[in-house]
Amino acid sequence: MILEQAILNIKAGKSAEFEKAFSDAQEIIKSAKGYISHNLQRSIDSADRYLLLIKWQTINDHVNGFRNSPEYQNWKKLLHDFYQPFPEVVHFEKIENLSSELIL
Amino acid sequence: MILEQAILNIKAGKSAEFEKAFSDAQEIIKSAKGYISHNLQRSIDSADRYLLLIKWQTINDHVNGFRNSPEYQNWKKLLHDFYQPFPEVVHFEKIENLSSELIL
Repeated sequence: MILEQAILNIKAGKSAEFEKAFSDAQEIIKSAKGYISHNLQRSIDSADRYLLLIKWQTINDHVNGFRNSPEYQNWKKLLHDFYQPFPEVVHFEKIENLSSELIL
Repeated sequence: MILEQAILNIKAGKSAEFEKAFSDAQEIIKSAKGYISHNLQRSIDSADRYLLLIKWQTINDHVNGFRNSPEYQNWKKLLHDFYQPFPEVVHFEKIENLSSELIL
């Protein structure tokens, strides 16, 4: 299992609209092959900043599966216009002995 | 409950040493007031990059409590020399209706 992580910086003043769009977009990701679960978290420190975490079975489920699916075009259409700059997505794997169980 | 998040970029070639130091450092954080749980995750995409997530009861437990504690000096001594650049720490809160339960 792997974790997709991205800091999302949203165009100033567009956060409410972004959250509304994400409410539809999350239904797309939830039905993707290999999807396990996700969190959208809102920054407490700075406005218009979010943390997106998505847990996948494998990195291929995200990079090759989801990104090449027709559903990705709908995800993109709903969300990509809100980002400034376009986010860097990084994939991580848990280091068991350097972690405790974290429930988000 | 809040989530502390930081991307840690480690000086080239120092990752094994950093992980060893983190093994000691995690014992410090585990005994901090307000600490709930943590994850250290290793990037799959790029070398010497980690994601640190720490769940706290409140933001004050981290920012005022832990950072002003004598134990923070030991945490700093163990870890701060590995970072390049020094990481930006951001605090987030979960948006319930835009998240599912995520177990890391």
